[in-house]
Amino acid sequence: MKTKKFLLNENDIPESWYNVVADMAVKPRPLIHPATGKPIEVDDLVPLFSREASKQELNTTDRWIEIPEVVREAYRMWRPTPLVRAAGLEKLLDTPAHIYFKNESVSPVGSHKLNSAIAQAYYCKQEGVTNITTETGAGQWGAALSLAAKYFGLELAVYMVKISYEQKPYRRSMMRTFGAEVIASPSMSTKAGRKIITERPNYQGSLGTAISEAVELAMSTPNCKYVLGSVLNHVALHQTVIGLEAEKQMEMAGEYPDMVVACFGGGSNFSGLAFPFLRHKIDGSKPSTQFIAAEPASCPKLTRGKFVYDFGDEAGYTPLIPMYSLGHEFKPANIHAGGLRYHGAGSIVSQLIHDKLIEAVDIPQLETFEAATMFARAEGIVPAPESSHAIAAVIREALKAREAGQKKVILFNLSGHGLIDMAAYDRYFAGDLRNYEVPDADIKDGVKSLE
Amino acid sequence: MKTKKFLLNENDIPESWYNVVADMAVKPRPLIHPATGKPIEVDDLVPLFSREASKQELNTTDRWIEIPEVVREAYRMWRPTPLVRAAGLEKLLDTPAHIYFKNESVSPVGSHKLNSAIAQAYYCKQEGVTNITTETGAGQWGAALSLAAKYFGLELAVYMVKISYEQKPYRRSMMRTFGAEVIASPSMSTKAGRKIITERPNYQGSLGTAISEAVELAMSTPNCKYVLGSVLNHVALHQTVIGLEAEKQMEMAGEYPDMVVACFGGGSNFSGLAFPFLRHKIDGSKPSTQFIAAEPASCPKLTRGKFVYDFGDEAGYTPLIPMYSLGHEFKPANIHAGGLRYHGAGSIVSQLIHDKLIEAVDIPQLETFEAATMFARAEGIVPAPESSHAIAAVIREALKAREAGQKKVILFNLSGHGLIDMAAYDRYFAGDLRNYEVPDADIKDGVKSLE
Repeated sequence: MKTKKFLLNENDIPESWYNVVADMAVKPRPLIHPATGKPIEVDDLVPLFSREASKQELNTTDRWIEIPEVVREAYRMWRPTPLVRAAGLEKLLDTPAHIYFKNESVSPVGSHKLNSAIAQAYYCKQEGVTNITTETGAGQWGAALSLAAKYFGLELAVYMVKISYEQKPYRRSMMRTFGAEVIASPSMSTKAGRKIITERPNYQGSLGTAISEAVELAMSTPNCKYVLGSVLNHVALHQTVIGLEAEKQMEMAGEYPDMVVACFGGGSNFSGLAFPFLRHKIDGSKPSTQFIAAEPASCPKLTRGKFVYDFGDEAGYTPLIPMYSLGHEFKPANIHAGGLRYHGAGSIVSQLIHDKLIEAVDIPQLETFEAATMFARAEGIVPAPESSHAIAAVIREALKAREAGQKKVILFNLSGHGLIDMAAYDRYFAGDLRNYEVPDADIKDGVKSLE
Repeated sequence: MKTKKFLLNENDIPESWYNVVADMAVKPRPLIHPATGKPIEVDDLVPLFSREASKQELNTTDRWIEIPEVVREAYRMWRPTPLVRAAGLEKLLDTPAHIYFKNESVSPVGSHKLNSAIAQAYYCKQEGVTNITTETGAGQWGAALSLAAKYFGLELAVYMVKISYEQKPYRRSMMRTFGAEVIASPSMSTKAGRKIITERPNYQGSLGTAISEAVELAMSTPNCKYVLGSVLNHVALHQTVIGLEAEKQMEMAGEYPDMVVACFGGGSNFSGLAFPFLRHKIDGSKPSTQFIAAEPASCPKLTRGKFVYDFGDEAGYTPLIPMYSLGHEFKPANIHAGGLRYHGAGSIVSQLIHDKLIEAVDIPQLETFEAATMFARAEGIVPAPESSHAIAAVIREALKAREAGQKKVILFNLSGHGLIDMAAYDRYFAGDLRNYEVPDADIKDGVKSLE
């Protein structure tokens, strides 16, 4: 009997997160304060984030950052997660490729997002914070933070992108079940929200706008911090538990990936899986591994965006981030992969793309649902629309391997399941979904070019 | 760091199912052929079920029945499942009880149902069957069989109880994603369906009616078998992997349960968890363990039903089953725990209840949602409305233990998650759910009394 799942024990939950910045020859450029034009320091971030997250955000020297025992304790609700050999998919594709996936969908909220939610909520709690705010696209992050907030006894308000608030009512219900307040964004509750509603009355929202609203609420509420689910370095850091576990599990399988693939919104699940493997490319021990970020063709910041300093949010409340961006006012099409509807990439990933250590592909919406359906029927798991971008990229590579007659070892991140996205599948089967082109004219310059 | 989850490896997936009938001093009475009045034999069942399932159904002598290697291979998609110490719930209840749950919700379809779906689909495939039919209530069983049918390359038609077809559209979508055909029951596609639609035009369906429709379709379709998700002995048999794994895991935890609790519809998840532990009560080595089946107060066959021979379906197509029953024409209220809306209990469980080896409690709907919300907030997992009956029963016992100042070890089955039932939670939070009383006059006599 061939082993299908490679399972670790609770003792194998990593004791430290891996900070790839410490190993990068070319570091990401610093975050810049938009008012002063100077690099951001910890004290600039603390009004918004917990002090510990702020320190992690700017830490460029420590390779390993210890995971607090309380956080590891919470991780044990669902970690370690399985590594699975996708033998069914391999058979369906008749490919010589060996396909593995890290199954982050087994978390109680159905995605990898809980890895950082727990850590950030813990730091807030420890620093005496009582209220937190955040944004969410498809609701994966919002659901995760709702559970984390409940776990540590914090009050949470979530700005949920309006299109997802309407498309994904079950995830909204899930947040409420965990005790969070959920507001559709853009809303009338903030200046940023009122402005965009006035300018574009039918606008269905974006992550950029929801971030503005959450930041504004945090800044105007006593003892309240803002918590972000992607893009920033400390979020990527917390997600490295995924790759660190996967590394041990690939050893159990007796293989090392030729390709590491994940979908890409702001970078959290991609970074989490890729960075621990990337360190072996950086140190020269595994020079040929490819790292592939799979983004939606309708929101193609990595494949078609510009390398610029830009705001992380639509209203321009955040520091300037060195990123591949479509412009912070980019309005993404209403695809069902709500978690990928974001205009920019985190600064680490952007630098790595620029330095050609990682690469990106863009996938049209219909191809992602075709891939998702194949995966569901072959592996039994209905994937999230976001994760389906990774699956589509993997299928492309597995078919190339078949044509070339090459054995390739492909590892991807199943960042979440799609059980709460079934309405999207219904629309796909009914023929109601379509692809979206992005005209060149829609791609803006950001605040300052880095080329 | 206290261990929270007790994890097994793929090698620990049981090699045999446990057949409790072989150990019972008083065997369940036989199934009876309604036309001849004689005990059913294997050849009577084969027109409906696979031969192997039919043989297992009537096997009263073999304690252990080998699990085919192909079935164990499929089990490895998600088994073994974790045993979890519900430390968060214990803390919330401030109870000296130790609460453990077997987490069957981690299966790709979100419930324990896949344990038997895989086995039955495999036997059908092996015997050359091409098409199968079934019924489903909430859709947990239908989703499981859809995946199992796809796994073995069988065509499947599912009759889904109309109230659930409307209340739980996502689970319907899930079945379609796996490639199954889904029909709301009662439907016009069968005689049984047409009859009840004509008599009661607004009837929202029940499992009993859906079974009649699925059986009728199977009987009138070439090379087609019917597959059932609960009630019957071979289904209970397949589910014993749950308890057999849990037994090893309780050993890892260094405890033995004083109480084993599961929700009760037809008996599949209750039997699966309880029977392996029950064998130690039967052999006298653990005489004091309590076994508690938690059923809805609105469908109280174990607590208020009669011990009778009755039909398993509404139209009277099945053999006569010795069961606690509310009468095969009982019309259950539209509670959200669709999987528990069934008039009767399987013959093994019925005999065990009669012989006082196990006991039952009935829980009103509102109490189940209150318990579910407490559990979600304490343990991070949103439970299925069905499983919430077990949780409510556990909370009652844990609070009793607190009052008595007694340490009790309680083990329950988290048979499924509720991520696809979020609409029910919304209605609960909105105050739109209520309890249902069952007047004594609604409880019928069945076909023949066994008292």
